[in-house]
This record gives sequence, C-alpha cells and structure tokens, in this order.
Amino acid sequence: MTNKIFMLMTFIGVPLSVIGSLMHWPTMILFIIYCLSIVALASYMGRATESLAIVAGPRIGGLLNATFGNAVELIISIFSLKAGLIGVVLASLTGSVLGNLLLVAGLSFFVGGIKFKRQLFNVHDARHNSGLLMFAIIVAFVIPEVFSMNMNETKTLSLSVGISIILIALYLAALFFKLVTHRGVYQTEESEAAAENGHHEEEPEWGKGKSILILLLSTLAVAYISENLVHTFHYVAEAFGWTELFIGVIIVAIVGNAAEHASAIVMAYKNKMDIAVEIAVGSTLQIAMFVAPVLVLISLLFEKKMPLVFTLPELITMVTSVLLMVVISNDGESNWFEGLTLLAAYFIMGIGFYLL
Amino acid sequence: MTNKIFMLMTFIGVPLSVIGSLMHWPTMILFIIYCLSIVALASYMGRATESLAIVAGPRIGGLLNATFGNAVELIISIFSLKAGLIGVVLASLTGSVLGNLLLVAGLSFFVGGIKFKRQLFNVHDARHNSGLLMFAIIVAFVIPEVFSMNMNETKTLSLSVGISIILIALYLAALFFKLVTHRGVYQTEESEAAAENGHHEEEPEWGKGKSILILLLSTLAVAYISENLVHTFHYVAEAFGWTELFIGVIIVAIVGNAAEHASAIVMAYKNKMDIAVEIAVGSTLQIAMFVAPVLVLISLLFEKKMPLVFTLPELITMVTSVLLMVVISNDGESNWFEGLTLLAAYFIMGIGFYLL
Amino acid sequence: MTNKIFMLMTFIGVPLSVIGSLMHWPTMILFIIYCLSIVALASYMGRATESLAIVAGPRIGGLLNATFGNAVELIISIFSLKAGLIGVVLASLTGSVLGNLLLVAGLSFFVGGIKFKRQLFNVHDARHNSGLLMFAIIVAFVIPEVFSMNMNETKTLSLSVGISIILIALYLAALFFKLVTHRGVYQTEESEAAAENGHHEEEPEWGKGKSILILLLSTLAVAYISENLVHTFHYVAEAFGWTELFIGVIIVAIVGNAAEHASAIVMAYKNKMDIAVEIAVGSTLQIAMFVAPVLVLISLLFEKKMPLVFTLPELITMVTSVLLMVVISNDGESNWFEGLTLLAAYFIMGIGFYLL
Repeated sequence: MTNKIFMLMTFIGVPLSVIGSLMHWPTMILFIIYCLSIVALASYMGRATESLAIVAGPRIGGLLNATFGNAVELIISIFSLKAGLIGVVLASLTGSVLGNLLLVAGLSFFVGGIKFKRQLFNVHDARHNSGLLMFAIIVAFVIPEVFSMNMNETKTLSLSVGISIILIALYLAALFFKLVTHRGVYQTEESEAAAENGHHEEEPEWGKGKSILILLLSTLAVAYISENLVHTFHYVAEAFGWTELFIGVIIVAIVGNAAEHASAIVMAYKNKMDIAVEIAVGSTLQIAMFVAPVLVLISLLFEKKMPLVFTLPELITMVTSVLLMVVISNDGESNWFEGLTLLAAYFIMGIGFYLL
Repeated sequence: MTNKIFMLMTFIGVPLSVIGSLMHWPTMILFIIYCLSIVALASYMGRATESLAIVAGPRIGGLLNATFGNAVELIISIFSLKAGLIGVVLASLTGSVLGNLLLVAGLSFFVGGIKFKRQLFNVHDARHNSGLLMFAIIVAFVIPEVFSMNMNETKTLSLSVGISIILIALYLAALFFKLVTHRGVYQTEESEAAAENGHHEEEPEWGKGKSILILLLSTLAVAYISENLVHTFHYVAEAFGWTELFIGVIIVAIVGNAAEHASAIVMAYKNKMDIAVEIAVGSTLQIAMFVAPVLVLISLLFEKKMPLVFTLPELITMVTSVLLMVVISNDGESNWFEGLTLLAAYFIMGIGFYLL
Repeated sequence: MTNKIFMLMTFIGVPLSVIGSLMHWPTMILFIIYCLSIVALASYMGRATESLAIVAGPRIGGLLNATFGNAVELIISIFSLKAGLIGVVLASLTGSVLGNLLLVAGLSFFVGGIKFKRQLFNVHDARHNSGLLMFAIIVAFVIPEVFSMNMNETKTLSLSVGISIILIALYLAALFFKLVTHRGVYQTEESEAAAENGHHEEEPEWGKGKSILILLLSTLAVAYISENLVHTFHYVAEAFGWTELFIGVIIVAIVGNAAEHASAIVMAYKNKMDIAVEIAVGSTLQIAMFVAPVLVLISLLFEKKMPLVFTLPELITMVTSVLLMVVISNDGESNWFEGLTLLAAYFIMGIGFYLL
C-alpha cells in the first residue's frame, strides 16, 4: 500500500523535478517536489537495502540500512558545502543525530511498545554503542567547541582535521571489532535463534542484482535532486520566516532520514528490536563518526572550509540527547513510555530551533 | 516522642502565627515561628499521607507522600509568584530538587546503611526514574537556558510555556504507564512479598476519614502561614546578610520538604528502600515535571511571568546532582557511603550558595 | 630487560642530575635528564610497591601502587606551588586525571584485550569508583568553576578550601568503607579465588625491608630532582613553542605517572584486570580527592594561593573523560576496542592542548 504511494511519488516526482528545474517553476513548488521525491527515493533505497539485508543477516543488514540512509544525507551535504552553506551542513548533521536518536528510536520504541509490553534488545550492543556515542558526541564534538574559544581560525581547522581523522580511524576500528575480532561474541542465544528464524521466515522483496541496480539508480536521482534542493533553502527560509538552522536541523534531517524512520519502525513493530536499535543508533554513529568527519575533510577541497564547531544550541541538544539515550537504553529493553520520552525531548528541541 | 514535639509545635505555632502577624511582631521572630509551624504542619500532612499510604500500598503510598510534601512547596511558590518573587520561586524549585535528590536520599541511604550493610531497591524503578530525571533536568531545564541566550523575552516565554505543557503531558503519561499499562510489570518477587507483608504488619495511625480531614486542615493552615512567610524573606535576607538565592535554595527547600525528609528516613531505617527512594526521587520528579511547569503556567495569570530559565549555578547544581544520582542508583542498591557521598555533594552546593 | 634499562637510567641519571644542576648545563639537556631520571625512579617506586603489594593482597596492593605513583606528582606539585606556578599545578592535576583515566586505562584495556577476548573486573568496584569519579570531578570540580564566575577572589578561595576539606573527608570515609565496614562484601567468588592464587603464584621481587628502603631513597631522589625540574619549565616552553598548559597536562603528567602506566599494563597483560583498573581509576580518585585538595590547603602556606578553579578546557576534558569512563566501565568488562576508544579520546585532548 505505502509502497504503491512511494512508487507513484517516484515516477511522478523525479520527472517533475527535472522538468520543473529546467523550466524554472516557482521555488516553493520545486522545494516541495524535491523533498517528496527524495523521501520516495529514500524508501526505494531502504527497501533495496532491506532485501540485501535479508540475505546478509540482521547485523550487516542494519549496517547496510544505516549506510544508505546516510548516503542521502552525505549527498545533500556535499552539495551544500559546494554552495558554501557551512551552517546548513552543521545544522543538518545535528538534525540527523537528533532525528535518529530521538525521533527514529522514539517512534520505534513507542510503536513497538504499543504492541508488545516489553521489548528486549542486545544489551552488549547497546552498551558498546553507548560508549561510542559518548566518544563521538561528548568528547569529539565538545572538545573543539570549548578549545576553539581561545583559538584562531587556522588552529581551529587543524584541530578539526585532527579530530576528523581520529574519528574515521576509530569508526573503521569499530567495524573491524564488530565484524572480525568480536563477531558474534556478545550475541545472546535468543538473538542468534531470532536471526536464524529471520533467515528462514523472510523472503527478500527483490533479488541481489535488482536490489543493487535500484540502489544505484535511486542514489543517482537523489544526487541530482539534492543539488537543486540546496539552492531553494534560502528562498524557503525567507518565505516561511524559518531560520536556515531550522531548515537544516528539522526539514533536511527529516527528508534525509525518512528511509531509516520507515524501516526502523517496521522492524520495531515486528519485535526485531536489535535491528531497529541498530538502525537508529548505528545511523547516529555513522553520522557522527563517519559522515561529519568526511565532510570536514571534503570541505578542504572547497573555498569555504568547515571546522567541526557547532553552534551552542546544536551541541547542547546533541549532548543531552546522547545522555538521555545512554541512560534509557542501558538496560537493554524498551517500552512505549521510553519511546514517548525520546519523542518529547525531540519536540522540545524542535520548538527551540523553531523559535531561535 | 517526635510526634508529641510536632503536636506541641503545631498547637503553639499556628495560633502564634495568626496572633503575631495580626499584632505585627518583629519580622525575625515571625519568620522563625512561621518556619517551625510549617515544618510541624508538614509532619502532620506526612503522617496523614502515610496512614492513607498503608491502605493504598507502597507504590501509591510513595506517590501520595511525594504529592503532599510538594503541596507545601506549591503553596509557598504561588504566594511568592503573586508577590513577584520570580527569583525566589526558581531558587526554591532548585532547592527542592537538590534537597530531595541529595539531602533526603543521602540521609536515607546513610541512616539505613548504618543499620543494614547493603540495602536493595527495585532496579527497574530506579532506571525508569533515571530516564525521567535525565529528561526533566538535563533536557527540559537545560534547553531553555541555552536557547534563551539568543532569544528575546517573548520567545523565551513561548519556549517555556511549550516545554511546560510537554513536561506536564509526559508526567501524566508516566502516571498512566506506572498505574495502568505497566502496573506491577517490573515488580520483583521479593518486593511483591514485602508489599504484601507490609499490608499485614502495619497499622495505619489514623483512619481514612481522619487522615483526609487532617490533610485538609493542615493544607489550609500551611497556605495561610506561607502567604505571611513570603513577605518576611526580604527582611531576613538583609538581616542575616543572606541572598534571596540562599533563602530560596536552602531555607525554603528545607522547610518545605521536612515532611519527606522525615518519612523517607524512617522508611530507610525500616529497610523499606523502595518507598524511601520513591519519596526522594519521586518527589524530585514531581517538582521538576509537575510543580515547576504548573508554576510557569500559573505565572501567566500574574503581572510578572516566570520563564523556565534558571540561573547558571542553579542549573549546574541540578544537572550534576542528577548525574550523580543516576550513577549511584543505577545498580539498585545502597550503603552508608553512597549516602555520605550525596550528603557531601549537598554540603558543597550549600557552601556555594551561601557564599554566592 | 626493561628493569635493566631503568637501573641504568637511574644510576646514570641521578648523578648526572646532581652534577648537571650544580654545573649549570644547558637547560634543555637538564630537562631531559630530569624527566628520564624521574621515570626511572618512579619505576623503582612502582616495583618496590608491587613487592609490598604481593604481601598485602591485591586491594591494598592497588592502593599502595596508586599512592606512590602519586607521591611523585605531589612532590613536583609542591615545588611548583612554592615557585608560584599555580597554572602548571592545575594543569598537571588535569593531566594526571586524563593520563590515568584515558592513557593508563586505555593502554591496559588495549594491551590486555589483544591477548584476551573479554576481560572481566569487579563490577561493584567499578560502580563504586564511578560514583566517586562523578562526585569528585562532576560535582566538586565543576561547582567552584561555575560559582566563582560571580565571586571575588576571597570567596572563591573560601569555597575552594571548604570543598577541599569535604573532598579529603570523603576520601578518608571511602578508605574506611573499603577497608573496614565493607571489606570483601562486594568481592566475587572468582576474584577471591584469583586473589588467593595470586598469593601463591607470585614471589615478591624484594623483601619487605628492602622494598621500603628503595621506596624511601627513590622518593628522596625524586624530590630533589623535581625541585630542579620545575625551574626548567619556563625555558622549555619557550624553546619548543609549547604553552605551560601543554607541559603541565601532557609532559609532567606522563613523567609523573610513568610508574602507574607500567604496572597497570603489566597487570592487564596478566589478566589481573581488578588490579589494573584499581591502579588507573584509584589513582585518578586519589589525585582528585586527595592530592588536589591537599595542594589547595598547602598553597595557603605560600604567597600565591591556589583556588580549585581549573581553566575551561581543563575542566571540560576531565568531565568528558569521566563520563566516557563511567559508561565504558559500567558493565565490568573490557576489550581492545574500549581501550582504543579511551586512547583516541586522549589523543584528541592532546592535540587540543598542543594547539591551545
């Protein structure tokens, strides 16, 4: 049902995006077409990834999900960097962190929790992720903020580059840990059984080849539309009285992460909390430890360089979200109220960014 | 024994409060009479609540205890708001949070821990409460502080009102979770057994009707005395060289929370740690998620509106207290040293506010 | 092998230190000789302590290790205070906290984790330590920072002295708790067994008398060299373009804590994680709850008094390190990746202090 809607949106939205941008339709209409097209394309990317994930097992599957959800994010950000919109990029990184940690996880916990009284997920993975969240947000993002107060621009950029390289290195080490040296070490018996059942129960929607083709095509389409989307921000901000901060934190983040939203919630509803949490938290980690530092390094190629220095509201919302998530996920189980708590935190931050 | 002292204090203090305020006795003497009377009345409220609590079981009992301990707080604050003392209200909210989290819980852990080597409490409740503490203090109180730096007064107030509504909504959802959808879900076998034994062992001091009557009468008396008490603050602050901040954070908070102090410590001494923790942490949550936002909304009726923006020392002491409590209560057990640690934190903050 | 190197370094370094300082050799050469001599002497202190520790059991052993590792720190700091180098003392306290929590623990987890897939340590001790870390760093160090913003110098010093006394009192209470009232209460069966085996397996390197003599002699030598070392800081800072902050945080801390580094890593490699963690975290706690407040009190005897107010970068790095360590050690087990995460945090901070 929703798949048909997304199919319609894609086959109408993508051509309209091309025609509209060539014919210089009104910016506001283009903005809406672009956003809806990206959401629809992201859904295709999500489903193609899910098909691949079923073949590859729940863990790699979650990783794949997170990667291609963030491909959209990465593509939009590169075009924003090229256009010199440093503020929008930092804001949309913030928005992705908040969106994944609070909105995606919150909706997953809430929707899953309405169907099931208590939902369990692998407590070892949750703690491993908590350590990484603390490292990436509380250490790697907070340090340059505080130190750059007493630094000139060159030193701030050097610090940002140094931290970015360390972040990427640790991210790769984390993959090595998870997939090589400690593969399955922390897996509980139930989750192993669940994983095995998952293999037998589920049929992939598309074959491997078709999945990869769809992934490729939708990625290209997302790239094309993103480049155009970025140039509408300024106009939309003025028209609605929104700040570029609000567009970055809330709008871009929701559009860019729609795929994860959808698939994480579906997984939670099927009581596959390991995958739902992996998508939400894994995606946050990928944004913080991979997408953000990669963008810092890529920005060195452009005229305007991007230091890893967020505005204070951006930083504080990320820090408090991480602390909240660490405490809530620490026991390896969730319920509807924990989901509602995360959502309430998201709304509070949304109001804040809207009024700022 | 102590009950007789409180009876004496009430039957001497309340008439003296009335006579003294009508005859305009020296302000310092009135301040002392008012404070002692409220402490004594709060003890009556506490015992009436405890009687009701025995009938209602430990969980609702703890909730009742916290509610009526905070009735005193709420009443004093409304009269302070009416007198335009925004700073005193925010300070006394801070003081209640610190007092409950550090002083009440600290004394409970310490006194109980001297009698028992290790005391256990429900770890699920502790973690549920930790999540709420993080949400209320770290998210809902920190966000307006940071965002309001770049906002005008109107926007700050809008943000405060928005956050207040979300806080109250989540507080009601938390009650719904605890009392309806997840009632007893996280109860351990021991605590169930303990709860059942509790019912049989203990006799309520007063019957249901008498308890309610006493609650009603002492609430009225507290309201009358609070209105007079509020107007002595300015004079007392000058006479002792105290700031209004110190009066709010330490004096009002101790006077207003004496009831919880007493009953939580008694429960800890009887090794009923579930109730002691419920009183201390539950009361903190009620202050942060119910009393504070309700006061923000009530302040809209008065000339001077109260935004949810604390001073930096107030905010930081609350944030650090929550982090300390979350880490200490995370394992679901306590001992005398953990109590002493909480008390030491309270003393450090007390010295700070005294010197400020 | 390494022992022979340290022996050579001691028997060459100490005489050279004396001769060099009397003959006014170039400062840079003296600085290097002093540093290497202290590292070598600290190794003697470490091994003497280890010998004593084997006799005394793992817990007291860990305590002894931490104490004499920090003797070097304390001695250097007293001479720095005497020379009026308040900033260097605060920086080297910061450096010791960071060095122990991130570098020592990080290397221990990493080196141990390469040999063993999962290493366990006593989760009760870890949580007890987490509570103390929160208290010492997040409460006792953060409060004066925030409150002193609105205080004059006299009040800031009064607050510092008050907090220092409370810190020392709680530190003594912690020892009383650990060694008297709750001795062995939280010991797991395995760790008891391991401790017993440890007694039988290991032979102390030196006898009790010889150990104490070596401890005494090396302490005296360290004191003599430290006094000279302190006066080279200014010159070295200028020569290398380093700030005094960087010297304090990184150089002094590494030189002063070399002993702990060595012995903690050796313990981790032998899979005695209880001792390794006790050295790293116990040493941090001793710095924060004993060395720092004692130095505040000692500074009252000198012309320049030292308040307990760190610079913002110092404070934030300590706070974030504690939060990271609390989350990582919370489950009572470690692996190579957790070690790498701690090391990555240390490198990020090191880059920051270098560029500052």
